[in-house]
Amino acid sequence: MAEAKETLSVSENVLKEVQDMAYDARISARTLSRADTEWKNRALEAMAAALEEQADVIVSQNAEDLARERENGMSEAMLDRLALNEKRVAELAAALRELKALPDPVGEVMRGSTLPNGLRVLQTRVPLGVVGAIYEARPNVTVDIAGLAIKSGNAVMLRGGSAAAKSNQTICRILRQALDRTGLPMDCVQSVDEFGREGANALMVSRGFIDVLIPRGGHNLIQSVVRNAQVPVIETGEGNCHIFMDASADPKTAAEIVVNAKTQRPGTCNTVETLLIAAGADSSAVLKKLSEAGVTLHVDAETKANLPAGLSAEDATEEDWNTEYGSLDLAVATVPHLDAAISHIRKYSTGHSEAILTNDVRNADIFVREVDSAAVYVNASTRFTDGGQLGLGAEVGISTQKLHARGPMGLEQLTTSKWIIRGDGHVRR
Amino acid sequence: MAEAKETLSVSENVLKEVQDMAYDARISARTLSRADTEWKNRALEAMAAALEEQADVIVSQNAEDLARERENGMSEAMLDRLALNEKRVAELAAALRELKALPDPVGEVMRGSTLPNGLRVLQTRVPLGVVGAIYEARPNVTVDIAGLAIKSGNAVMLRGGSAAAKSNQTICRILRQALDRTGLPMDCVQSVDEFGREGANALMVSRGFIDVLIPRGGHNLIQSVVRNAQVPVIETGEGNCHIFMDASADPKTAAEIVVNAKTQRPGTCNTVETLLIAAGADSSAVLKKLSEAGVTLHVDAETKANLPAGLSAEDATEEDWNTEYGSLDLAVATVPHLDAAISHIRKYSTGHSEAILTNDVRNADIFVREVDSAAVYVNASTRFTDGGQLGLGAEVGISTQKLHARGPMGLEQLTTSKWIIRGDGHVRR
Repeated sequence: MAEAKETLSVSENVLKEVQDMAYDARISARTLSRADTEWKNRALEAMAAALEEQADVIVSQNAEDLARERENGMSEAMLDRLALNEKRVAELAAALRELKALPDPVGEVMRGSTLPNGLRVLQTRVPLGVVGAIYEARPNVTVDIAGLAIKSGNAVMLRGGSAAAKSNQTICRILRQALDRTGLPMDCVQSVDEFGREGANALMVSRGFIDVLIPRGGHNLIQSVVRNAQVPVIETGEGNCHIFMDASADPKTAAEIVVNAKTQRPGTCNTVETLLIAAGADSSAVLKKLSEAGVTLHVDAETKANLPAGLSAEDATEEDWNTEYGSLDLAVATVPHLDAAISHIRKYSTGHSEAILTNDVRNADIFVREVDSAAVYVNASTRFTDGGQLGLGAEVGISTQKLHARGPMGLEQLTTSKWIIRGDGHVRR
Repeated sequence: MAEAKETLSVSENVLKEVQDMAYDARISARTLSRADTEWKNRALEAMAAALEEQADVIVSQNAEDLARERENGMSEAMLDRLALNEKRVAELAAALRELKALPDPVGEVMRGSTLPNGLRVLQTRVPLGVVGAIYEARPNVTVDIAGLAIKSGNAVMLRGGSAAAKSNQTICRILRQALDRTGLPMDCVQSVDEFGREGANALMVSRGFIDVLIPRGGHNLIQSVVRNAQVPVIETGEGNCHIFMDASADPKTAAEIVVNAKTQRPGTCNTVETLLIAAGADSSAVLKKLSEAGVTLHVDAETKANLPAGLSAEDATEEDWNTEYGSLDLAVATVPHLDAAISHIRKYSTGHSEAILTNDVRNADIFVREVDSAAVYVNASTRFTDGGQLGLGAEVGISTQKLHARGPMGLEQLTTSKWIIRGDGHVRR
């Protein structure tokens, strides 16, 4: 038997309730889809202002989540992701205001023509409808996804995870009230957290109610949603990213790029996790700078044999090549040539971001052509795979799948198209 | 419990074999992705010529399929879909040659810019990689999908259904030999028919091996794939299409459009299946012309009460509103006003194609805005929802989902994008 899908456990009652909510979301989304850009921007401003005004409430509710999870033994890193303070709430409000400045994708005419028979054809951009989001202890995602959904004309159903229950509940209530004050339906933003894990399962099986489901979180959460959902899913955020240092790479530049890609923000999905060094490349500067930056190296035998004097490193195991550390750890392998590097990447990459450091035009071209990832770099840090950095504005996530969206997903990727065809009695011959 | 997914039954052996084939397909697709447009066009010409040269073999093998299925009691309509003769084989070859004339989407630069920091960013179009197709007794699909895949740089894994086993096997062998003679890897086109239903299941669970799975066939086939596949799927072809005749519609024009939409080719997915008549619309001409054209009307009580003298009709049941007849049958309901028509469409439509016949600008605009289908028409036949008719050239199918592709899917929808980012030591600050 092939790995069977889990049977998603959800009671008929919860399924009914969630689908009733999704139905309300659909009705609300229709109203929202008619709101012009200025109206949606007023709503974003109201949402931002409301978060600021009630920052103290959010922070105090968040404190209860933090206390409970510290009790439950949540790691400091996770607690930091969960934590909200006045400053972080202000950043969430700022993020909503940034969305106001972004172009509204809805209504854009993607293509249009008058056919030889006189039919007038337009393909226009319309909202998807109802977007579902399943994520973990990151209350900021509640605000990000809600803001992106509103700007792109979509209703959103949120499942934020129990660790952030009180924070999400409070934020969701505040955002809904802000929508209501702006004259937009508050059911454009809803949470299914009250149903716990069953709420997530209900979203996953509700074909026809949920137009797309976006998981945001760790490997297990994403894979569980991708494999078990019966509604369309966009896979985001898993980044086992590689940098290949070619023999022709400039050692000093390589050191700056690799250290930046590993240490500038280690927890992000565009952080490099494996460094592949071409036999013959002068990697001493890279490895020294990494170790000076506090990076723990997990190296293969050949790399270990050529380790600069005074550097220590752990022995890499097969698992290291598969690991997205999200920390100041880096797997390092020495490979005989470019082709071996490409083979390694094909075997272990999650298809997020890979870079080649080289001064050889031919090798750069081969790498760009042969590496099948969302973003492929030449002589730059993988940290640039980011909607803001690439000029798309705020992002829903980084898609590592090939359908619909690949790489940074902006507002445009929360829309679909509608063909509008006008005739005057046209029939097909 | 929510409707659990079927546990897809596939033995480890078959799964391994199919995934080994998919691996070969991926390697072959890499070679194909480097072939320029002229090379791919030479392959399409060779495939077309080979089909013509061996038409007699194809027809004789197809005859065996036909004989067996007639034994098995297949309907005449299905037998006709299955049947291949010299003329139809010539049409298949012609379809391949038409693909030569279409622009090659691969390598198109979708967007590009130089960022303020000097990073040079390109988003380019690349093939998806390995496309899976699961379809029913339609040997022509084997040629269509293979041709579209080759032109767009993709390898394809085919599961054509047992009814057309010998036809598909023969066609597949001929296409593979043609590829080989052109110098392209024959494993760009492979069939898993030998594994029967298990082959289809293996495709559905092979995440990472199959980039997208396209089901083509009836409701049950499509829904089974959409609900059970663990690989990304594009839902195509289900068309419960509606035409709404507004009170302001010109009776004569309405009659021509509705008769065309129902009878021009009743088996197609863009054929109208339900006619909604506004109270007050003069529908006598429409209904008369339909019945003269041999259409069986399935009408609700109010329509029956106003049936033109001499016309007979069956009583519609709830099931009729849900039925994609694919035959000379039409469900007819009388509705009080536009909003009631839109509600009916929202309840029963598969999101394929809907039309309003009206002379009222406001009603036309409301219908276009409020009906959430892939194609929305004003005063034209739904039969135009077709890649060829809308100027996209040959089509993979009509997508009724909102992600990746909506409406006619052409070559472009068999591609994804790759971000290529070139710097000279760029790091993120």
